[in-house]
Amino acid sequence: MSKYQQLAQDLKNRITQGVWQAGDKLPSLRQTVADSGLSLMTVLNAYQLLESQGVILAQAKSGYIVAPQPEAFRYPETQRQIYFSDKVDINEFVFNVLQASKQAGIVPFGSAFPDPSLFPQQALARSLVKVTRQMSPSFAADNLPPGNTGLRKAISQRYAKLGMSVAPDEILITSGAMEALNLSLAALAQAGDWVVIESPTFYGAMQAIERLKLRAIAVATDPREGIDLKALAEVLKTYPVKACWLMSLHQNPLGCSLSEQKKQAIYQLLCEHNVSLIEDDVYQELYVGSSAPRPIKALDTQGCVLHCGSFSKSLIAGYRVGWVAAGRHAPQLQRLQLMSTLSTSAPMQLAIADFIQSPQYERHLKRLRHTLAERKFAMYQLLRAHLPESVSVNFEPGGYFLWLALPAHMDATQIYHSALERGISIAPGNLFSNQAEFRHFMRINASYDCSPEIVRAVKALAQLLYHHPN
Amino acid sequence: MSKYQQLAQDLKNRITQGVWQAGDKLPSLRQTVADSGLSLMTVLNAYQLLESQGVILAQAKSGYIVAPQPEAFRYPETQRQIYFSDKVDINEFVFNVLQASKQAGIVPFGSAFPDPSLFPQQALARSLVKVTRQMSPSFAADNLPPGNTGLRKAISQRYAKLGMSVAPDEILITSGAMEALNLSLAALAQAGDWVVIESPTFYGAMQAIERLKLRAIAVATDPREGIDLKALAEVLKTYPVKACWLMSLHQNPLGCSLSEQKKQAIYQLLCEHNVSLIEDDVYQELYVGSSAPRPIKALDTQGCVLHCGSFSKSLIAGYRVGWVAAGRHAPQLQRLQLMSTLSTSAPMQLAIADFIQSPQYERHLKRLRHTLAERKFAMYQLLRAHLPESVSVNFEPGGYFLWLALPAHMDATQIYHSALERGISIAPGNLFSNQAEFRHFMRINASYDCSPEIVRAVKALAQLLYHHPN
Repeated sequence: MSKYQQLAQDLKNRITQGVWQAGDKLPSLRQTVADSGLSLMTVLNAYQLLESQGVILAQAKSGYIVAPQPEAFRYPETQRQIYFSDKVDINEFVFNVLQASKQAGIVPFGSAFPDPSLFPQQALARSLVKVTRQMSPSFAADNLPPGNTGLRKAISQRYAKLGMSVAPDEILITSGAMEALNLSLAALAQAGDWVVIESPTFYGAMQAIERLKLRAIAVATDPREGIDLKALAEVLKTYPVKACWLMSLHQNPLGCSLSEQKKQAIYQLLCEHNVSLIEDDVYQELYVGSSAPRPIKALDTQGCVLHCGSFSKSLIAGYRVGWVAAGRHAPQLQRLQLMSTLSTSAPMQLAIADFIQSPQYERHLKRLRHTLAERKFAMYQLLRAHLPESVSVNFEPGGYFLWLALPAHMDATQIYHSALERGISIAPGNLFSNQAEFRHFMRINASYDCSPEIVRAVKALAQLLYHHPN
Repeated sequence: MSKYQQLAQDLKNRITQGVWQAGDKLPSLRQTVADSGLSLMTVLNAYQLLESQGVILAQAKSGYIVAPQPEAFRYPETQRQIYFSDKVDINEFVFNVLQASKQAGIVPFGSAFPDPSLFPQQALARSLVKVTRQMSPSFAADNLPPGNTGLRKAISQRYAKLGMSVAPDEILITSGAMEALNLSLAALAQAGDWVVIESPTFYGAMQAIERLKLRAIAVATDPREGIDLKALAEVLKTYPVKACWLMSLHQNPLGCSLSEQKKQAIYQLLCEHNVSLIEDDVYQELYVGSSAPRPIKALDTQGCVLHCGSFSKSLIAGYRVGWVAAGRHAPQLQRLQLMSTLSTSAPMQLAIADFIQSPQYERHLKRLRHTLAERKFAMYQLLRAHLPESVSVNFEPGGYFLWLALPAHMDATQIYHSALERGISIAPGNLFSNQAEFRHFMRINASYDCSPEIVRAVKALAQLLYHHPN
């Protein structure tokens, strides 16, 4: 164990012992250098290690504080390890929830997008103005599938920063990640085929499965550890699975990220059974700590991981630009796109290509990560301060979702309706399951500043929970 | 018969007699007033009637000229009235043709888009700049399906100008007409279902059918009269058809438009058999004459016509904004869009909404219609001057396509490859058929100015035809 790892372990032990508790400020770097006699670099490395493990949180201007300790988290009592669905039927429910959350002035705890005020809307508008003025008359043809060359190169270079080799030719620009994920699934599976998803999972996965009339195998996914490996192995051994769709980083709705070991194990399992992976990685840029985590795609030597990304969660929503690095499936995806939407809007591709190649992008991402980390913790504290103790809040570092377990008798869909009447949206747990599981769970968007309005909304939500009939 | 109809008939008779021949200038309006003793309004009405019938063409600054007379047009000798396809397999060929035509500097006779220099790119850029600066932070959510309210209203108002009642709520904004058509088809038919298409037809219809694993019934479509009504009636009587997909105006690739009678007959037939119509109407704005033709949708009292439009052919390509007025199928289409691409890029929707509500739009359309009409006729003359006489050119008023019949022994795909080597793209006839029919036909894009480069290309094409092996 190196010096910085030793120091990190010491600090962690003291946190476990309660020397510092959730929200407490840790000694400053300078103070720790003085106390320990270690170099500044060693101390910094130790703090960053703890930050990336989610043990401590960096705060603007005030150093590091202790992150929330894992709470005793209630799993659904009835949850099965594996669920088979011949028919997925979720879209109508999703549609109604999304329509409801479009109301002007609603408190958007149910939103899937970060607070739009965190996006550099004006700077991107400048990029858009610039590229629009410079567009050649042939811009429409130049940006047909696989998409704008400059943008694909820029994305490829961002993979290179992670130590990954992804050629621009492997990348297809899409109308947001939704199109990327849908094209990926359409390339891998035909009506009636089995596809593995997580449980709970992003509702978009189930909508795509419903649209293509596939059959789903939902594998239990732990709110901290991710998908159940044993169950996944069992399924792959037994069923002719055509694709596996999961999130390795900041899983939606749970918020958790997979360990390196687990990513390797999943990749190996899928390779053994010759099953391609659709890796939904739309929150990839929203990590905490100083080093970016790598997706499962980083392990892919076979071209069997279709890595789907988007700018809608990290840069700007509404431009509808995403991509898929589709490995050996890339040619097929290009053809499928040509058949369905033809191509992604050219000015949007050009504007994003311009922006992400400027130094502004990295500055924006740093600021965004920092703000989201602070807000997520602040929201966690706010929920803890007001919600009944019987509610567990799963706090995982990164992203901007908090996953709440209510007491088993509570019905989150009912709370969703009552909250809506009070101008507050939440995402009820069964939105993330085809079996109406997770009825007493909910996902909360923690990307908003704890303004008086947000505090009032949390208090109102708390009242609904306190007065929920037994 | 009113006075102007009588005058129109007289003029037409003289043209048939050869008093004036194709390309000849007609007497000016003023001259005809003097000669006939009729009022200027009567003469103008007569000329406009002849123009809308495609008998004469308006020319900038030089009054009216006689349009090309219908040529003896060769139909494929082997063409059947009805073709059944259990499996449609065209996408690979379409993909290769489109990829080839992306080469820089190629002469784009094969292109499906009008000359991009005819688009008001800079004026639209100004709209884009304006709306981008004014976008509220919630713009992404505001423009989710069914799409931007202002844009849907503006489209609804354009329908009103045609005397049609199409409520904004019936309209869904899509990523170009391709998405509109695909969503329409997905709403109406399931894998294995029968769908009626024209023969020849826009290849996008076949790609959509291939993607959804539907079965196609291709009904013979006359290059002047459109789809064969008897064959259509026969098919509808015999097969459980789920949808009919056709173009009533400026059909791609033939260029022809349906008469009012025929539109009514088709609508009635489809109603009788309770079959919904997907009306691909992307060239709707590119008519000749002073009054806009109305689509079959104008007859629809049952909400069973899904009318698909686009700005990519009449305003700007590459923005990827289209729409569908989906009648009673509108709610289902909204849900299908949410499942597949989520929504259309918001800045693009806002920019187009801004532009089409300004007086610039109507001015642009007038200029565009005029230029296209002139260029189409000029290209017709150029082709006639250089191509072998054994080649027939189908000249139909409106749009910008010419459909050419080569002698039966010629192979347009072979000519396509030879032309490509010489830097010229064409659209070979079998691109428009799932049965590799129309092998000795080709579609020529006539939207380009007859520059020296274009003249050279036509001469080169003529050489290929002269030297085609017998």
